[in-house]
Amino acid sequence: MLGNIRIVLVETTHPGNIGAVARAMKNMCLERLVLVNPRHYPSAEATARASGAHALLANARVCASLDEALAGCRLAAGSSARLRSVEWPQYEPRECAERLLGEAGQGEVALVFGRESSGLTNAELDRCRYLVHIPSNEAYSSLNLSQAVQVLSYELLMAHRAGKAMVEEEREVVPLEEMEGFYRHLEQAMEEVGFSDPRQSNKLQRRLRRLFFRARPDKDELNILRGFLSAAQGRKSMRRKGGGEA
Amino acid sequence: MLGNIRIVLVETTHPGNIGAVARAMKNMCLERLVLVNPRHYPSAEATARASGAHALLANARVCASLDEALAGCRLAAGSSARLRSVEWPQYEPRECAERLLGEAGQGEVALVFGRESSGLTNAELDRCRYLVHIPSNEAYSSLNLSQAVQVLSYELLMAHRAGKAMVEEEREVVPLEEMEGFYRHLEQAMEEVGFSDPRQSNKLQRRLRRLFFRARPDKDELNILRGFLSAAQGRKSMRRKGGGEA
Repeated sequence: MLGNIRIVLVETTHPGNIGAVARAMKNMCLERLVLVNPRHYPSAEATARASGAHALLANARVCASLDEALAGCRLAAGSSARLRSVEWPQYEPRECAERLLGEAGQGEVALVFGRESSGLTNAELDRCRYLVHIPSNEAYSSLNLSQAVQVLSYELLMAHRAGKAMVEEEREVVPLEEMEGFYRHLEQAMEEVGFSDPRQSNKLQRRLRRLFFRARPDKDELNILRGFLSAAQGRKSMRRKGGGEA
Repeated sequence: MLGNIRIVLVETTHPGNIGAVARAMKNMCLERLVLVNPRHYPSAEATARASGAHALLANARVCASLDEALAGCRLAAGSSARLRSVEWPQYEPRECAERLLGEAGQGEVALVFGRESSGLTNAELDRCRYLVHIPSNEAYSSLNLSQAVQVLSYELLMAHRAGKAMVEEEREVVPLEEMEGFYRHLEQAMEEVGFSDPRQSNKLQRRLRRLFFRARPDKDELNILRGFLSAAQGRKSMRRKGGGEA
């Protein structure tokens, strides 16, 4: 199960942190590190801080986008130092670890960490089914990146050892990249039929993502939804072409 | 309760680790850092890694010995990356945190971390009522020092927030430095009466420490024990002087 968990670091600035993450992961029996646009990598500093985890670091996959890093995953969870205003579901590390582990029993999952200075953007959090927030000093809440990875990895190993994998439901679900394709289609269709204004649709799209994150469509269901979207688009373009009611 | 917990670092080699520990502690609402013979300190690298925890670092106390660092404590727990052959009681971080927190409700306690390369010596572990071992990859078990402090500090904050302070018993106990005086007295007396050979008494002394760690004498009880030891020593010296049975 632990082998199905990717640790994804988005736009890490300090290569030392990447090395420290590799070491923390290996200590906690995790293996798969994915780097999205790291500032400096490969780097001697990363290698030095990785200590005995050089192989894990050398096997890290470097990606040009978060979507690429998440390809093939059933689910992503995002680490957040702040409590967010938008209504993402949010768990503490222990519950997040049990949920991730349960999901990892059925396929690949990702745990995503943002930039040292500013974390993850809202657009990146939109890819995440839920957030995880490490309880901390309210006056000084931002952990070093590698320390945050350490705490989460520790909780994952603890959950694994205790056999505490929380399974939401055992079902085939479509991978994240197909869901992203669906969200783009949905947004486009809603604009084309005149339901939403693209300049004001961010909040609306976020609510719909939450809805479909809960629903977790399988392949057949997604085909039905996309078929309907295409029909709505076609009807609209027919209307445009024909100028009358269809 | 968290304010009664000291984090003690013994002979830290890399100043960057000291800074990272300060940051991890402040993130987790701990305040009292004690350094025993740090290799390089103060240090610009420590300050840089402390990030927003400069005040905590500046307030760190530097000591010349572990005994000095533990003075005034009711109890010390030691961090260990290895499972030890000698029979120290050993807990995982979660239980250790709950026990330490319970003890911290009654007085000062210490959580002791050893050198980056070699951890704590057996003589240093002898000062500890129990050990804490962070579960990890058996093939790669040694966490970076600051990561180990992060995991334990996180569990302390989690236990604090959940109100999970495990109280063994509410009693006045003598501080560690007085217990050390008693152990020296005990060892001396056992040698003087011819019960133990100082060259072979290490294991014996360790077993007796374990016994008295469990018994946790109060001041009156310790006075009784020391009175008995003195009497035994006196009887022996009387025997030496008089040459006959007293």
